Amino acid sequence: MNVQESQALTIGVDLGATSVRIAAWSPAAQGEILESAAIPTRITAGPEAVVDDICGVIRGLIHTHGGGAEPLGVGIGSPGPLELPAGRLHQPPNLPGWDGFELRAEMERRLHLPVIIDGDANTAALGEYAFGLGRLLAVDSLCMLTLGTGVGGGIILNGRIWHGAAGMAGEAGHLTVDPAGPRCGCGNTGCIEAYASATALTQAARRGCASGDGASEPATEADSRSASDLAEDARQGDTHARRIFDDAGRALGIGLATLINMLNLPLYVIGGGVAGSWDLISPALFDELPSRSYVYRLTRPGGPVSHAMPAGGTQVLPAHLGPEAGLLGACILPLPAADSRMELQTGRLSVSR
Amino acid sequence: MNVQESQALTIGVDLGATSVRIAAWSPAAQGEILESAAIPTRITAGPEAVVDDICGVIRGLIHTHGGGAEPLGVGIGSPGPLELPAGRLHQPPNLPGWDGFELRAEMERRLHLPVIIDGDANTAALGEYAFGLGRLLAVDSLCMLTLGTGVGGGIILNGRIWHGAAGMAGEAGHLTVDPAGPRCGCGNTGCIEAYASATALTQAARRGCASGDGASEPATEADSRSASDLAEDARQGDTHARRIFDDAGRALGIGLATLINMLNLPLYVIGGGVAGSWDLISPALFDELPSRSYVYRLTRPGGPVSHAMPAGGTQVLPAHLGPEAGLLGACILPLPAADSRMELQTGRLSVSR
Repeated sequence: MNVQESQALTIGVDLGATSVRIAAWSPAAQGEILESAAIPTRITAGPEAVVDDICGVIRGLIHTHGGGAEPLGVGIGSPGPLELPAGRLHQPPNLPGWDGFELRAEMERRLHLPVIIDGDANTAALGEYAFGLGRLLAVDSLCMLTLGTGVGGGIILNGRIWHGAAGMAGEAGHLTVDPAGPRCGCGNTGCIEAYASATALTQAARRGCASGDGASEPATEADSRSASDLAEDARQGDTHARRIFDDAGRALGIGLATLINMLNLPLYVIGGGVAGSWDLISPALFDELPSRSYVYRLTRPGGPVSHAMPAGGTQVLPAHLGPEAGLLGACILPLPAADSRMELQTGRLSVSR
Repeated sequence: MNVQESQALTIGVDLGATSVRIAAWSPAAQGEILESAAIPTRITAGPEAVVDDICGVIRGLIHTHGGGAEPLGVGIGSPGPLELPAGRLHQPPNLPGWDGFELRAEMERRLHLPVIIDGDANTAALGEYAFGLGRLLAVDSLCMLTLGTGVGGGIILNGRIWHGAAGMAGEAGHLTVDPAGPRCGCGNTGCIEAYASATALTQAARRGCASGDGASEPATEADSRSASDLAEDARQGDTHARRIFDDAGRALGIGLATLINMLNLPLYVIGGGVAGSWDLISPALFDELPSRSYVYRLTRPGGPVSHAMPAGGTQVLPAHLGPEAGLLGACILPLPAADSRMELQTGRLSVSR
């Protein structure tokens, strides 16, 4: 079967700690979502209730868009840690009460459809690969960091998500950039996440306020301020706010240097809400990168080995897609592998997993 | 053609800064080398002279073992940085005067045989994969760090060397473990290499002596002492020597935590001369690892997700093979990919690149 010419439907689910986005997608619709819905994640009601809610929405979307035929399947981007291919959660920090929950099995039991689960940072990377920068730059491989509440990571190698042996690969957010750095929720100190997540940024602002270090508001007020408010302060010239984004950019630069030295990919993408402050984080990032990665020095655009790479060298760029990357990635998870090599040359929209 | 049943010959070359080892190998010889030779690397005579020397030895081996037939090809493990598949060197720190040298083209011009070049740490990882721990533990993927004069790295994913976009992947030795750490030859500070190479160990000993910090010999004497002498001191209870190996083990633990979080491979191998001090480096390594990698905590042998991985979880082990890993890896570089999937189940000796 050629999925591209068919009207086959897929369902994508982006499972978040506060809301779930669910979409109907068809390869025939030029990569656009046919319809999407968002529902609150009823965490306190437990995983079974959340799955019931999701399946209710999915049934409605299939009824509307399925044309009476079976969908190809349901793709889900889920918070982790996630054991794959089992689709079992292991002590997920953002989904309390879900430890050991068999998300894949519970979805399949209700829907009688193939359900393919992946980490939410992996589906975001897959979406950006298939519909965003990966497509625009015609690269086969990329690594994407998603800077949100936490920092997720996804690695696409030769058009496929690199899962590792148990589905736990790509945790770039927990790459140690300074072993003596701030404590991270994962138990480590000095992870990228402890510098460059929205949580880390606001916590750093609060610490700065509490100690009277450069910020004007009292600690209690700063506590509730968002990372984007902090970015506005930085753009207005607030020294303390600027330093917080500098630290985040520096941590990203150190981490990216390691990723470039390790993987030598043609593209590294910074996505998620904090990537909206690219103007604030990128100067320190690019200040750090060349001194810390000789592979970057050789392969950066214009470097001596950049000719050997697609897109002319190692590109480090903010994401092209917004939050829809993860939902789009989930939508294409169910595409059969045989049809799924992204045909960039012809501009066709089939993608790989 | 089935290479395994044939008498086909390959030539492997392990190009080092002080000596070159060259071997004749046949898939029919049960993975054993038929004959090997070592010659000094005449660095001061320039790359053309060194290549002439190597090709002279290769012709002799082909004459003796080729049975009048063409060998499959010549595999070379070379110091880097190396641009692949071109086989061109870029400012190799250990081969002064070789910048821009077209190693592959110059070999092919002389031998009229297919020449396949890879980084020396990659051929070591391939050798350990095909003939060492990779085979013993029946894993498809591994990452190997080679602790020698420098620290090299090689990544095998699904039986193949991961080269990245320009052949420069796998540089785990230049993973930053502490951004404020000691200076590394690559221009960065705090690389694994700056803690765990033989050079770093002896330099740390010298620094300790110079400052009178715990060691008894004067700095000039310590200067010439080898890493294995230092290991003996540590085993005899020398506090300063022990601390140097502790620091190396800790750096490796921090770096491995990042590699495990990123790649979730079933096997990480520590090879090279310094791995002979496994008793001295492994305690600090395993002390660091669980706190810095939640993926390791979940997937270590006996951990909740270890059942999902080959060999029962994330293994971190000293290499099974010694220096012959790199030479064996070079010997199998020329095997055709179609024949080269390692058939671990049947114990047959064909391997992947």
